[in-house]
Amino acid sequence: MGLLPKSMAVLIGELSKLPSIGERSATRLAYFLVMHGAKRAVPLAAAIHEANKSIKLCERCFFLSEETLCAICKSHRDPSVCCVVEKPVDVIAIERSGEFRGIYHVLHGLWAPLKGKGESDMKLKELVERVKNEGIKEVILATNATVEGDATALYVAKLLNPHNCKVSRLAQGLSKGGELEYADDFTLSRAFSGRNNLY
Amino acid sequence: MGLLPKSMAVLIGELSKLPSIGERSATRLAYFLVMHGAKRAVPLAAAIHEANKSIKLCERCFFLSEETLCAICKSHRDPSVCCVVEKPVDVIAIERSGEFRGIYHVLHGLWAPLKGKGESDMKLKELVERVKNEGIKEVILATNATVEGDATALYVAKLLNPHNCKVSRLAQGLSKGGELEYADDFTLSRAFSGRNNLY
Repeated sequence: MGLLPKSMAVLIGELSKLPSIGERSATRLAYFLVMHGAKRAVPLAAAIHEANKSIKLCERCFFLSEETLCAICKSHRDPSVCCVVEKPVDVIAIERSGEFRGIYHVLHGLWAPLKGKGESDMKLKELVERVKNEGIKEVILATNATVEGDATALYVAKLLNPHNCKVSRLAQGLSKGGELEYADDFTLSRAFSGRNNLY
Repeated sequence: MGLLPKSMAVLIGELSKLPSIGERSATRLAYFLVMHGAKRAVPLAAAIHEANKSIKLCERCFFLSEETLCAICKSHRDPSVCCVVEKPVDVIAIERSGEFRGIYHVLHGLWAPLKGKGESDMKLKELVERVKNEGIKEVILATNATVEGDATALYVAKLLNPHNCKVSRLAQGLSKGGELEYADDFTLSRAFSGRNNLY
């Protein structure tokens, strides 16, 4: 589209490289940013810059942090239970539920050999080291309930097997408020095989 | 959420001020930007900066431009037909259809007195000046087919009435490929009232 000023075309191009932003959304966002320059675009560009400059990974659990240790590792949490997740946003989701009071380990990837992602693409060695050295008694595998998430969980479980530590996996089944009628086959089959005795 | 590094929280805040980006999308985008720093975030921040520095409005039609006149005003177009639109992205949509070979006028707003938006909030005086001075023979009102778009069209039409220039409005009716069964009442009523004789 030769009509657009070059810098606008570049901006649309960069925006459309973001996840789940197509060309139309990118055009709308770019227009918004150009029309609200001082109020929106300048602070946004500054925020992107600042975040990239100052955010690194926590040296212990690999969650996001501006310091050596992240806010969770620095606070008083139960160090004997460690929840393993794929990515930092998963930590935020779990914290939102308020259910978990232990520590985390962020893998930054899943085991997906078909996509060429193996052991070395995630923080797996580091997890084994932590289990060995930190006195972790239970590892809860909280990867996604997808094929890759399940495969990663099995892989990690096998790897941790020799280290004398309990390994568990988040329950899978019907989601709260979900109707049986609309549940997919896999979910339903998991809900059956994972059924709990009431009395 | 005190868990997140401050600069991350700021970035999420800025991203969620963008149109149609909620807090969840903003979190995902921020995470993506932080994890793909050099490859995505730095170019994006630079593109936002550059676009805001160099893009201004065309002095004649108020489309986006890096120079005094935009690419459309500088090219050989029919100067006797002027298409009036609300915002720059509308120009891009119309150009994509390839149907129009005239020039444009971007209002940068709609007439919406209930929202406190009046004549002075759009480039309306400038349109009247152009009609007076540029020898425009027809003005095509291409504002949205919404209540505000229609109101603006009527308002502009009345304003241009004394200036001896034809004023038309884009046709409203069924969209191409649209099924009658699913058309809403207004669309259907417009399609009836605007019906065309075939022979």
